[in-house]
Amino acid sequence: MSTRRRKFWGWGYEDQTLAEADARKVARFVAGRTGTTPGAYRAPPRLEEITLKAPRVAAPTSLKSVVSDTVYDRAAHSYGKSYPDYVRAFARDFGNAPDLVAFPKTEADIAALLDWAGAADIAVIPYGAGSSVVGGVEPVVGAAFKGTLSLDMAGLNKVREIDTTSRAARIEAGVYGPALEAQLKSSGLTLRHFPQSFEFSTLGGWIVTRSGGHFATLYTHIDELVENIRTITPNGVIESRRLPGSGAGPSPDRLIMGSEGALGIVTQAWVKLQEKPRHRASRTYFFDDFLKAANGLRAVSQAGLYPANSRLVDAEECALAGVGQGERHLVVLTFESGDHPVEPWMARAEECLRDHGGVVAASIGAGARDATADIWREAFIRAPFNREGIIACGLMHDTFETSITWERLPDFHASVKSATERAVQDATGRPGHVTCRFTHLYPDGPAPYFTLHATPTPGRELEQWRQIKTAASDALIRAGGTITHHHAVGRDHMPWYEKQRPALFGAALAAAKQALDPKGILNPGVLVPARNR
Amino acid sequence: MSTRRRKFWGWGYEDQTLAEADARKVARFVAGRTGTTPGAYRAPPRLEEITLKAPRVAAPTSLKSVVSDTVYDRAAHSYGKSYPDYVRAFARDFGNAPDLVAFPKTEADIAALLDWAGAADIAVIPYGAGSSVVGGVEPVVGAAFKGTLSLDMAGLNKVREIDTTSRAARIEAGVYGPALEAQLKSSGLTLRHFPQSFEFSTLGGWIVTRSGGHFATLYTHIDELVENIRTITPNGVIESRRLPGSGAGPSPDRLIMGSEGALGIVTQAWVKLQEKPRHRASRTYFFDDFLKAANGLRAVSQAGLYPANSRLVDAEECALAGVGQGERHLVVLTFESGDHPVEPWMARAEECLRDHGGVVAASIGAGARDATADIWREAFIRAPFNREGIIACGLMHDTFETSITWERLPDFHASVKSATERAVQDATGRPGHVTCRFTHLYPDGPAPYFTLHATPTPGRELEQWRQIKTAASDALIRAGGTITHHHAVGRDHMPWYEKQRPALFGAALAAAKQALDPKGILNPGVLVPARNR
Repeated sequence: MSTRRRKFWGWGYEDQTLAEADARKVARFVAGRTGTTPGAYRAPPRLEEITLKAPRVAAPTSLKSVVSDTVYDRAAHSYGKSYPDYVRAFARDFGNAPDLVAFPKTEADIAALLDWAGAADIAVIPYGAGSSVVGGVEPVVGAAFKGTLSLDMAGLNKVREIDTTSRAARIEAGVYGPALEAQLKSSGLTLRHFPQSFEFSTLGGWIVTRSGGHFATLYTHIDELVENIRTITPNGVIESRRLPGSGAGPSPDRLIMGSEGALGIVTQAWVKLQEKPRHRASRTYFFDDFLKAANGLRAVSQAGLYPANSRLVDAEECALAGVGQGERHLVVLTFESGDHPVEPWMARAEECLRDHGGVVAASIGAGARDATADIWREAFIRAPFNREGIIACGLMHDTFETSITWERLPDFHASVKSATERAVQDATGRPGHVTCRFTHLYPDGPAPYFTLHATPTPGRELEQWRQIKTAASDALIRAGGTITHHHAVGRDHMPWYEKQRPALFGAALAAAKQALDPKGILNPGVLVPARNR
Repeated sequence: MSTRRRKFWGWGYEDQTLAEADARKVARFVAGRTGTTPGAYRAPPRLEEITLKAPRVAAPTSLKSVVSDTVYDRAAHSYGKSYPDYVRAFARDFGNAPDLVAFPKTEADIAALLDWAGAADIAVIPYGAGSSVVGGVEPVVGAAFKGTLSLDMAGLNKVREIDTTSRAARIEAGVYGPALEAQLKSSGLTLRHFPQSFEFSTLGGWIVTRSGGHFATLYTHIDELVENIRTITPNGVIESRRLPGSGAGPSPDRLIMGSEGALGIVTQAWVKLQEKPRHRASRTYFFDDFLKAANGLRAVSQAGLYPANSRLVDAEECALAGVGQGERHLVVLTFESGDHPVEPWMARAEECLRDHGGVVAASIGAGARDATADIWREAFIRAPFNREGIIACGLMHDTFETSITWERLPDFHASVKSATERAVQDATGRPGHVTCRFTHLYPDGPAPYFTLHATPTPGRELEQWRQIKTAASDALIRAGGTITHHHAVGRDHMPWYEKQRPALFGAALAAAKQALDPKGILNPGVLVPARNR
């Protein structure tokens, strides 16, 4: 077993903390490309700097062995990984730490914890690996509960069965991405669901947040890779049949997918696997015009070719990732197959892109890895590590993502981008930097993903972030998008989620929650408005 | 406008009724291939032979213009198109006819009808085109209501908007398949969802029953072709956002899909369109062994090739369709594209089938239509018309369908087939005939579709059918399948649906229904057990 400990305040292990010089370097690079201005460096918090309120509740004797009240565990379960999470952690503010953290090892532990929490009026916040960037795991539940318990699923981390015939596996929900793939390795099969959070997120977390993975088409959300789900609710177990395709009534699994811990605790699932890719074709293309590139990808997505990856990165974001100087937009296109050569697919997709003005990036050698794509990929994986440096040096960095149909894209992109830029100026008094990429593609529209950088006023970061977040979300909802394509709703998106989802569907969901979680102890305030007392 | 009137007792228009000689011919053919024995011919019912109870309720003046109490309308809305529906219609038994039939022309009509029905304690049975084979539209609601109203959606039948950029259309729910495609025609786009019931079923019916269409892979259920849904419930309207891919909470649309009229009346939806196929490759293959053919299709489905059609028809069912004499199993494989030639796809899929013993059927001419596939297709389209002849001559004909993962398929197929054969023998005292085909394919399993023929005892058809249906459904549920892949639950499948769906999901669904339909007037007894009083 590794003895590495994860940072209680940010992404990765403690030994992956950026030194001050590296943090400054990252911040300087980002500032140089975004027109923002780093401020004073503030070191990440050390545990001895953190003071927590005494826990308001204590676990009963029978549960003491799976419940912790250490400062480390409580601090480490206080936040997800959003910008305001970092800001508060760097401010040494852990005022919302859970009273206790549970580490169940079995489903029986979970059932016992839920029974106790229900009886003792304790809010339970299901916790995968804490990669939420939407306040999904933060124990802010108002005054309606006697305490809060963060329920960390990491103890349920085994691949239990692999079915190589149907290509599926039964996997416990608390397993992290790398451990999941490591346990599948000997079978030659892979889940191949790689969200950016892959290293520090869990199967159960993916399912309840409708995580977006590696595949840009077809199997975009984890939803499409799920065969069945087993969930423990305060009222008992829900386990759907393991089936390739049922049409018997509304899908039970689709109620759990996206339920964000508000309906129950997902403990395991059968998921669909595939062969490791043996054939691969990957190319990058430059475009002078963002919307022409979008039209090229529209043609690809409507051609029925289904690339594994088909990412559009706008020029400014390319520069930020070290690809060029912001002069051209980038499209990365990858076909892969465990079964057959993919050249005919790639050739036709390339025609679609060329038809819309795409130029093959010069860096590609036939059959070799694509250097431009590699630079982008490396930046993508490093991004969560680099954020701490950016934020330590006083810059604001945030992302938000959505989806929209093609015919609305031009207006949507322009209005969301300009509203966000305006909001940065209004909130901080200085221009910021807003970029856009597409993470996933559907025949009827893309999933645009926005990244913003700004120079907040020291001490007013949270307030200014909230003003910008509000304006961006308002713009996005006004222009017809979804408040989230794959980051989930959490607490941060609730005001816009409530505008987006049909009110009566909200009533139906609240009624369903009441049937499963009558005391409303599960992740209060997420998806269903919290009870008032 | 056509003046053709649909049969009130069966499939198609009145002018499509089989003459006695034709009915006998069909029955003789089927009997000869299934080892069953036709009995005396009974003519289909004529309207003047039907006596209905007087309606127990009357529409208020404001709704009289959209409500009918004619014998034709009431009789025509008494049944779906299942075997027991035909048996009772041929027995001139229309004892469960709805008291009234509504033909709303607008959403306002629907809202007014629901208001009135709620106030007057009348059960409302949403009705698309009545193709249900599971008792989904039969107004059998027990004694808990003062009357029954069949709500026929045929008046909402327009394509309202076509978006050729995102390739989608906003379409009213009551439109029949052919009228839907006819209205799309000028756009050059098509929905291309062709269930066997296509001619006499509606978009709204497809959505609420999770209909299975033309595509054997990827877009198997209508679910995958829906962008948003608008639904009128007794408590108001639910309309989701039109989005290519949202991840904001559990999907509102997925609650309506499969809701079978028990949660609300779907009035319109945005659906995804595609280009008409310009490139096509279709071939048929023979296999000596059913499970080898299944393994061949497993290889195709796991190769990421996504054929538009990939049907396996067992040898006995081939014979029944006029393909061969029952000596070989048939696989039909079709690739199609509106964008690119599909030969590379076809070539690799053919390798998969050959690897498992598939032999190309000799009848194929290069580039030409495939005669074997054409025979099968013609039989497929004729089947619903021919059933009346089979049943008129006293034979039993029924189908049921399911899905199962590949690793369980051999045992599943054997046990369900033998249990059904045994049940036919036990119920009728004579051997019957049970065949199987695959209608849809997933990487993790197929959707097997069983067809049975038997020689029931005259006068005891319903009882014997119920005994067989019960045994087959028991076997199917015991062996891990779903009680339905795309026929829906209706009233006939409720006992097994209640075994299959997690009990707590049933409680959540009942709670959701309570939030949308507090008086429980919508399709009582379907999906959610009917109220008792």
